[in-house]
Amino acid sequence: MKYSFRNDYSEGAHPAVMKALETTNALQTVGYGMDIYCEEARNLIREKCALPQADIHFLVGGTQANLVACAAFLRPIEAVIAPDTGHPLVHETGAFQATGHMVIPVPSNNGKLTPQQLCAVCRAHSTEHMVQPRMVYISNATEVGTVYTKEELSLLHNACKDLGLYIYLDGARLGCAMVSQDAPLAWSDLAECLDAFTIGGTKNGLLFGEALVVVNDALKRDFRSHMKQRGAILAKGRLLGLQFKAILEDDLYLKNARHANAMAQQLQEGISQLGYSFLVNSPTNQIFPIFPNPLLEKLSSLYEYETQQTMDETTTCIRLVTSWATPQEAVETFLADLQQLGTLI
Amino acid sequence: MKYSFRNDYSEGAHPAVMKALETTNALQTVGYGMDIYCEEARNLIREKCALPQADIHFLVGGTQANLVACAAFLRPIEAVIAPDTGHPLVHETGAFQATGHMVIPVPSNNGKLTPQQLCAVCRAHSTEHMVQPRMVYISNATEVGTVYTKEELSLLHNACKDLGLYIYLDGARLGCAMVSQDAPLAWSDLAECLDAFTIGGTKNGLLFGEALVVVNDALKRDFRSHMKQRGAILAKGRLLGLQFKAILEDDLYLKNARHANAMAQQLQEGISQLGYSFLVNSPTNQIFPIFPNPLLEKLSSLYEYETQQTMDETTTCIRLVTSWATPQEAVETFLADLQQLGTLI
Amino acid sequence: MKYSFRNDYSEGAHPAVMKALETTNALQTVGYGMDIYCEEARNLIREKCALPQADIHFLVGGTQANLVACAAFLRPIEAVIAPDTGHPLVHETGAFQATGHMVIPVPSNNGKLTPQQLCAVCRAHSTEHMVQPRMVYISNATEVGTVYTKEELSLLHNACKDLGLYIYLDGARLGCAMVSQDAPLAWSDLAECLDAFTIGGTKNGLLFGEALVVVNDALKRDFRSHMKQRGAILAKGRLLGLQFKAILEDDLYLKNARHANAMAQQLQEGISQLGYSFLVNSPTNQIFPIFPNPLLEKLSSLYEYETQQTMDETTTCIRLVTSWATPQEAVETFLADLQQLGTLI
Amino acid sequence: MKYSFRNDYSEGAHPAVMKALETTNALQTVGYGMDIYCEEARNLIREKCALPQADIHFLVGGTQANLVACAAFLRPIEAVIAPDTGHPLVHETGAFQATGHMVIPVPSNNGKLTPQQLCAVCRAHSTEHMVQPRMVYISNATEVGTVYTKEELSLLHNACKDLGLYIYLDGARLGCAMVSQDAPLAWSDLAECLDAFTIGGTKNGLLFGEALVVVNDALKRDFRSHMKQRGAILAKGRLLGLQFKAILEDDLYLKNARHANAMAQQLQEGISQLGYSFLVNSPTNQIFPIFPNPLLEKLSSLYEYETQQTMDETTTCIRLVTSWATPQEAVETFLADLQQLGTLI
Repeated sequence: MKYSFRNDYSEGAHPAVMKALETTNALQTVGYGMDIYCEEARNLIREKCALPQADIHFLVGGTQANLVACAAFLRPIEAVIAPDTGHPLVHETGAFQATGHMVIPVPSNNGKLTPQQLCAVCRAHSTEHMVQPRMVYISNATEVGTVYTKEELSLLHNACKDLGLYIYLDGARLGCAMVSQDAPLAWSDLAECLDAFTIGGTKNGLLFGEALVVVNDALKRDFRSHMKQRGAILAKGRLLGLQFKAILEDDLYLKNARHANAMAQQLQEGISQLGYSFLVNSPTNQIFPIFPNPLLEKLSSLYEYETQQTMDETTTCIRLVTSWATPQEAVETFLADLQQLGTLI
Repeated sequence: MKYSFRNDYSEGAHPAVMKALETTNALQTVGYGMDIYCEEARNLIREKCALPQADIHFLVGGTQANLVACAAFLRPIEAVIAPDTGHPLVHETGAFQATGHMVIPVPSNNGKLTPQQLCAVCRAHSTEHMVQPRMVYISNATEVGTVYTKEELSLLHNACKDLGLYIYLDGARLGCAMVSQDAPLAWSDLAECLDAFTIGGTKNGLLFGEALVVVNDALKRDFRSHMKQRGAILAKGRLLGLQFKAILEDDLYLKNARHANAMAQQLQEGISQLGYSFLVNSPTNQIFPIFPNPLLEKLSSLYEYETQQTMDETTTCIRLVTSWATPQEAVETFLADLQQLGTLI
Repeated sequence: MKYSFRNDYSEGAHPAVMKALETTNALQTVGYGMDIYCEEARNLIREKCALPQADIHFLVGGTQANLVACAAFLRPIEAVIAPDTGHPLVHETGAFQATGHMVIPVPSNNGKLTPQQLCAVCRAHSTEHMVQPRMVYISNATEVGTVYTKEELSLLHNACKDLGLYIYLDGARLGCAMVSQDAPLAWSDLAECLDAFTIGGTKNGLLFGEALVVVNDALKRDFRSHMKQRGAILAKGRLLGLQFKAILEDDLYLKNARHANAMAQQLQEGISQLGYSFLVNSPTNQIFPIFPNPLLEKLSSLYEYETQQTMDETTTCIRLVTSWATPQEAVETFLADLQQLGTLI
Repeated sequence: MKYSFRNDYSEGAHPAVMKALETTNALQTVGYGMDIYCEEARNLIREKCALPQADIHFLVGGTQANLVACAAFLRPIEAVIAPDTGHPLVHETGAFQATGHMVIPVPSNNGKLTPQQLCAVCRAHSTEHMVQPRMVYISNATEVGTVYTKEELSLLHNACKDLGLYIYLDGARLGCAMVSQDAPLAWSDLAECLDAFTIGGTKNGLLFGEALVVVNDALKRDFRSHMKQRGAILAKGRLLGLQFKAILEDDLYLKNARHANAMAQQLQEGISQLGYSFLVNSPTNQIFPIFPNPLLEKLSSLYEYETQQTMDETTTCIRLVTSWATPQEAVETFLADLQQLGTLI
């Protein structure tokens, strides 16, 4: 069995999460997320974010959370602005567009958007013959592992307010962004800079689950009805509340993310010391080393990973992902294997 | 804490399911349902149904499964025929219609459709100014606990073939229908009479999960893409495979359903013996007794249940639901309480 | 060539309309309905309705106007209430549903809705698992020729305000309703009782065109963008303005309708005097006589008309439609032919 | 009154079209495009294109034709490839996306696509987490006046066949492309190289109307139902048939286009001789001269036109459009005015 650095959802859940599910298994609760565990988890998030009025909804997956937000927040003629590397434009099989909304791509090398780009898009959409840009989609950490600083988020938020845009953050890998050494974020930073955001659980210790935090009052109305319409209310909603409660207590959420980042950084530094370069310098749990193709032929017989892109005729960029579940031993073995393989070719 | 007969998803999962999740928790698998556990569960279903060529997909919830099937199986001008009591017309917040499809309601007292009704709908939709009926939606057991016999299913199926319709069965409570004393069905009966159907796990022992079985080749194409577009591919897809494998082995699926039915029938008989009548005579795990309102005032302080409908000025019909998790003691206590309350008013 | 009573759009346009198009043909204007003729026509409607603040849009066809209103006025989880005989449920190939909205059918024998029916629908849609009824669709005259009195409209309007519903009137045959002897309506009555309504031109003297009057401020926002998104802004928008201006001046709109009604009433009275009965007693330009099948065999070789429905084994109800273009001679000839045919069978 | 070079739909219709409408005005026909005039116009197109089996539909406008084609031809997970300058991405308020389909933008300077670009898009969309590119949208003449040669169209068509794509041509300005001096096209060239295309009438002599020619059998099914669902069947459909018949007889369609092109080329040459440059060298009826801003200040008091884009701090590109209706005198006066204004600044 090859060890897999393919993604951060290869294992089940953190033991604390499994225990929470196990110990409450026989208890009866009401359905659809109206139970006491969901309420406790909501209150934990409200406290952390200092957002006593926030609406918080628990959804099973990230694409699901994104598409319900898109359907609920936008009128038919309104569009999303997203980096051209963003999930809704690449890896969600047109889920946003299937709700009837255009997603306007903005070129991005590092997975991030700038206020200047938002201004340019808005200026270019000025008549009734064009869609109205309304929601900005960003992810943090981004699809290429980069992060927004607090200041960058704040500037984006101000630009959005000026331009009449909502800003929505896809936090599938939010924990890793929050604890990144380059650009740490506090829970309250999110609350201050965003109209809505998700707290990704699936990739940070849960069996599944994303918490959607709706900060802006204008976006709160009837959200549960929109969830139901898109098949996104879990019958046994308590499973989501229980898991989020388990992961938010004792800051396990951030601890998990710190471990994931530490493992990735150890990989990145080790690979760098062996003389290899990277597509992008990532401070989070996804790294993008560039290796010679003959080396990859051998490496692929030992490890699972994804190919990111062909660089030139002789080298390829791959993606290595770590998580709360990655044992340090796997990292060290990988680096040793890499060193040895490097001497063979 | 009041005991709840509100629904069949008040508890967690059957211990065998929990154990399957626990023992595999640390193992790595690929994502999105392409893992070995999902494949094993698929093969179990194929064997039971004697459908070696069936496509089988695992989805998290019932509304989700229904809406993806609707989106995937139909062209924009095609419509669904459903009983007016059916889930898509009543309790899914317009999920089918949100995919752009009309659902044509057919009046039904007992939750069931007849071949004659299908013919009438097709005759009435004859020009290009009307939608084209294409998919028949039925549920078994129905929303009011009734079941289709093998012969009824077979006649519906033949009518559908004659009329150019697909027949889709929502099996949220399929187990209880299959083992009902009135109209037992074998797995192979489903395979013979349906173009596609779901095997409901959420209400029969799983934490969550519905298996969608696509029998008709014409409906198979690109289904996973449609799932992704609707946010219905679970990242850790193995959770669905593991659960279904656990419940399908040793026929636990049907055992659970037998228990649920037995508890409901014990309730129904006991209530009947106390002199109360029912909205409908249900052979499955939902029963619909009619009680005097003063009695309900007292009963509601002891038990959780749903109100089905007002019958007249003095009586109301409620719904009592049992499941794999209902202890016989709860049934007996309920009947004793009912007897005692009956004497007080 | 058989004379056609099939519908009220068998001919071109009233000569006054043709003349308006002809005399302005070579003049240049801006496109998309922003020209001076559209503005003049809008002002004529605003004056007639005493609605100086109304937004008025010109669309090419009725289904188009209905579906854009549905898409623009409703949020995804909101639904339309309509009589089960209404156009959106029967003759628009699912146009409303294709915009993602459920249409809730209400049983109706005479094509009309009552406040009681609206209350019942709203009461039955009470949870987030159900769509939210928001827009009431009525037509006047209805699909079976009947009309709402001023008082009926007013009661519906009040019920809608109480229930949080918008009321939208499809006025494809509005002129004939306004001048009907049973229930005449003034322009200002429409303005008082409706949130939005169309003034049908196609069936009352125009080549094509429906004017959509948006009375309620809450429904005005970005309507032209919604039109464009649904392909409903005509490039040479002036064609609509010119035609409506021509028909609204000198009350030609109501004169045309009076002629259509008069021709239909003459038909209805003549047929009645010959001893035939009717499906419904219509005061407008569609009438629904019931004839013996042998008579229809002969009649169909002389006239074009539509079959409405089979009544029993020996009789059938047909629909005869008159318009501004129906010559009195055609009516008289029809009655003479009917009398003669009646004597032959 | 300033003369307008703003677009090619500033006037009414060619006199031959008006005459056809006038002379048939009082005649009765069936509705919805099933009349004899539509059938004659369809046969004229079939003959010209040597496509006896083609399905031909008449629609009122271009955005309408495009969106119905998109809705009818594609399954929900399928996407359109279009140049980023194309109408569906810029000027149709998200009409394609409102039918649920993603439009994948391809960078284009000259408004055209290449086979290499199609290959690259298809290679990049390889998994079920991505939409499936299926329909290529091109326009001819393009939005910047350029044209495809027969060979370019043929190569695109071959690439599409290899890649499993349909190719759809938006012919809003098809006439001007067909008679362009650079790249003339015969009717049969269109039939050979395309799966479906529109013949634009609105901008070439009709009051309104686009003919959609469906060449590929796979795209023909139930198209009229799709039209109805999108509000795109005109009640008095004969208006479209009559107009197309009038314009297709005696090759008036191509004559009109030749005049439009000739006027534009005279403008382009005259402007060039006065020393000004162009954004693009257009062989059709839209030209894009670049003028100093002070000159434009004066020019705008004499003529109507659209601003295309700011070039730098001192110059701006405008768009001048001619049509069948542009008098040569207007062209000559414009050039004289331009010369005079040029001497003043």
